[in-house]
Amino acid sequence: MFFIDIMLAGGGLMVKYPSGSLAAFRKTANKPKIRSVYQHKKSVSFSDRGMTLEQQINESNKYYLEEEIAVVHKKPTPIQIVKVDYPKRSKAVIREAYFRQASTTDYNGVYQGYYLDFEAKETRNKTNFPLKNFHEHQIFHLDACLKQQGICFTIIGFTSLKRYFVTPASFVIKSWKTKNKSSMTLQEIEEHSIEIKSSFRPTLPYLTAVDHFIADRNVENGK
Amino acid sequence: MFFIDIMLAGGGLMVKYPSGSLAAFRKTANKPKIRSVYQHKKSVSFSDRGMTLEQQINESNKYYLEEEIAVVHKKPTPIQIVKVDYPKRSKAVIREAYFRQASTTDYNGVYQGYYLDFEAKETRNKTNFPLKNFHEHQIFHLDACLKQQGICFTIIGFTSLKRYFVTPASFVIKSWKTKNKSSMTLQEIEEHSIEIKSSFRPTLPYLTAVDHFIADRNVENGK
Repeated sequence: MFFIDIMLAGGGLMVKYPSGSLAAFRKTANKPKIRSVYQHKKSVSFSDRGMTLEQQINESNKYYLEEEIAVVHKKPTPIQIVKVDYPKRSKAVIREAYFRQASTTDYNGVYQGYYLDFEAKETRNKTNFPLKNFHEHQIFHLDACLKQQGICFTIIGFTSLKRYFVTPASFVIKSWKTKNKSSMTLQEIEEHSIEIKSSFRPTLPYLTAVDHFIADRNVENGK
Repeated sequence: MFFIDIMLAGGGLMVKYPSGSLAAFRKTANKPKIRSVYQHKKSVSFSDRGMTLEQQINESNKYYLEEEIAVVHKKPTPIQIVKVDYPKRSKAVIREAYFRQASTTDYNGVYQGYYLDFEAKETRNKTNFPLKNFHEHQIFHLDACLKQQGICFTIIGFTSLKRYFVTPASFVIKSWKTKNKSSMTLQEIEEHSIEIKSSFRPTLPYLTAVDHFIADRNVENGK
């Protein structure tokens, strides 16, 4: 298993903070240093600031875009629009619409000439990740993009553990296709993934894992 | 100006039909060969079968996906959802929602390891393409993707002329920035684009133009 500490991807400087994040450092700066003995949680992390995995990825993408490191966007939810009202002197209002099944993953984009494609999933489970969280069309899409030499992966968040893994799509697809396999265990995910730590800028530095995938591919291709 | 005849992109066979399309050949096969002298239209093309540019591109993408040539999808329209009903024993119904401004182009995907990103626009104008058809965020997005070494372009359809051009984003961005948003002339577009012909499978073989862009880039990079 690889482990990556806080590192700005895309050739940026490597910055380490003892608390694991700039956010944690700033938040505690103006607070009393003695904690209550009645505190329930063993440790408090301010780095993900209570954000969902999706929010963390969206914030990271915003940072990557602003810093011209990568262009990655979440795709909008596909909607089947049935009825639209056009009120006078006001903007159009959709009055009847339905959610449609997406035919792709949620995120894609470009980084240093590489096509990136990934799906992000969270679980509160502490020991394994249930494979039913992936839909067939997502697996199919990742497989199709792999065949076109895209860099394809999933970001799996174990929210209860506050641990985040960037797992190559090849391993996820293989697990999903293996008969009678309901879950990937945490240990399997640890073995096949690059773990990333929730940080400050970017909130979730997943491109550090992508850098590893690219380096591995270049080794395979003899570059 | 380059001109590409009917050609299956992605290393497929080159197939030519006298009428310019297989569809035209099939459609006329069972019909009387003598046309009415009262026919209004001078020539009838079955190749685009009255489809909008968007429909043609979507059909082409479906073909490229099925044949494992490329994975390109149109992004869903972004919607701001305000109110959703959850009727008993029925699926969720969106009852109030608004159209949002997209922050990217409509299409992106992966082809032989290359990231593709493009916007498609139609005009009924016969002599020039008004640049106000591009929104600022689309130009910004194409520019950002170019910096990440994506293959970025636009597909411009002159519907009255039944002519389709694949124009590198670099030229569109330059025109947009220098021309005070007026127009690109048809002649300028001819000079800077690769023209593609509406066909049968795929309906609009835009990857043949992409192949040229990739070849040009490889020459520039000394490959």
